[in-house]
Amino acid sequence: MWLQREIRFEPRPRGFHLVTMEVLDALPEIGSLRVGLLHLLIQHTSASLTLNENASPDVRRDFESWFDHAVPERFDWEHNLEGPDDMPAHVKASLLGSSLSLPVSRGRLALGTWQGVYLCEHRDRGGARSLLATVWGQSRREP
Amino acid sequence: MWLQREIRFEPRPRGFHLVTMEVLDALPEIGSLRVGLLHLLIQHTSASLTLNENASPDVRRDFESWFDHAVPERFDWEHNLEGPDDMPAHVKASLLGSSLSLPVSRGRLALGTWQGVYLCEHRDRGGARSLLATVWGQSRREP
Amino acid sequence: MWLQREIRFEPRPRGFHLVTMEVLDALPEIGSLRVGLLHLLIQHTSASLTLNENASPDVRRDFESWFDHAVPERFDWEHNLEGPDDMPAHVKASLLGSSLSLPVSRGRLALGTWQGVYLCEHRDRGGARSLLATVWGQSRREP
Repeated sequence: MWLQREIRFEPRPRGFHLVTMEVLDALPEIGSLRVGLLHLLIQHTSASLTLNENASPDVRRDFESWFDHAVPERFDWEHNLEGPDDMPAHVKASLLGSSLSLPVSRGRLALGTWQGVYLCEHRDRGGARSLLATVWGQSRREP
Repeated sequence: MWLQREIRFEPRPRGFHLVTMEVLDALPEIGSLRVGLLHLLIQHTSASLTLNENASPDVRRDFESWFDHAVPERFDWEHNLEGPDDMPAHVKASLLGSSLSLPVSRGRLALGTWQGVYLCEHRDRGGARSLLATVWGQSRREP
Repeated sequence: MWLQREIRFEPRPRGFHLVTMEVLDALPEIGSLRVGLLHLLIQHTSASLTLNENASPDVRRDFESWFDHAVPERFDWEHNLEGPDDMPAHVKASLLGSSLSLPVSRGRLALGTWQGVYLCEHRDRGGARSLLATVWGQSRREP
């Protein structure tokens, strides 16, 4: 089985957002896989995807604090035409990565108990974001 | 061919550990693939996986030094309920990533000569760690 | 369909290089896929791959500035046998990652408008670099 579908996210404030449920709701066909993979690509260069703790909102706020500290707006950036938050956003996006590959097992995403998908918005006004989801694997009905 | 298997790692000290051989020993079926992929997910949010130099142990100690310097325990963390090593561990895990996708070629993992799989333990007492391995590809017996 | 091919890159200066076109030129078979994935592994531990902005060369220079600042040559490195640029190169390689998984849709790489593939050369004289490309998916001729 192969499936490919775009998932649109409404604009979010700068920060780290837990989106596991929205991703799964958009891909009910995962339920029919015995074993497979889900690949997610965020089709932008100033937002990113990562897997991390799905429980405490303060963890996600700490992500924002650390990344702002490590990749500051005040730096000797050459590329500053698109605002002070743009170039840090590009660097953060590459540090975290723009895609995730996640295993599927018996119809479910096989993450650890505490793992969730973060949509990381690195711009002040990033606008709507588009994810391309690709799913492939062996159907439960195959021998 | 599709294969999915959990690989358990006994508790390791905080630091970067070369585990290529343990991963391969747990997946002898890779030998039957002509071409394919191995996907590894560490099902935790305070440990991670990366590919790096498989020879000098001092490289792995330098990884630990740099990551401790870049993501220090002494920082204005809001989430500190689980100890001073917890929040830095989450950030390090996302910087390095929780999964690896590795090509298989003629029955072998097609890494570069100097590449090996690191299990990165970011907590002082992280406990046992679980990897979910997924293998798929074209068998050597297929036409 | 499964395809695996090595792509060789001539030596490049230290820095971030846009190589999307060279990768695609080496893989014309992508055009025959309805849906699939392209996986790229750089088979080295002091160079890396990432996806980022494909337009302004100053973005790529800013990447070099920030990574040099964040992972400096002057640090208490234990592993310094191979020169001052070696250990920072290993750390940068793991921060950015040595592989990319990219979706293919209707015969084309399904990246965002502004996304391109960077070959990140972290050594002063890294020499030629080898990428292993693996492509798999559903052919356009399959029902």
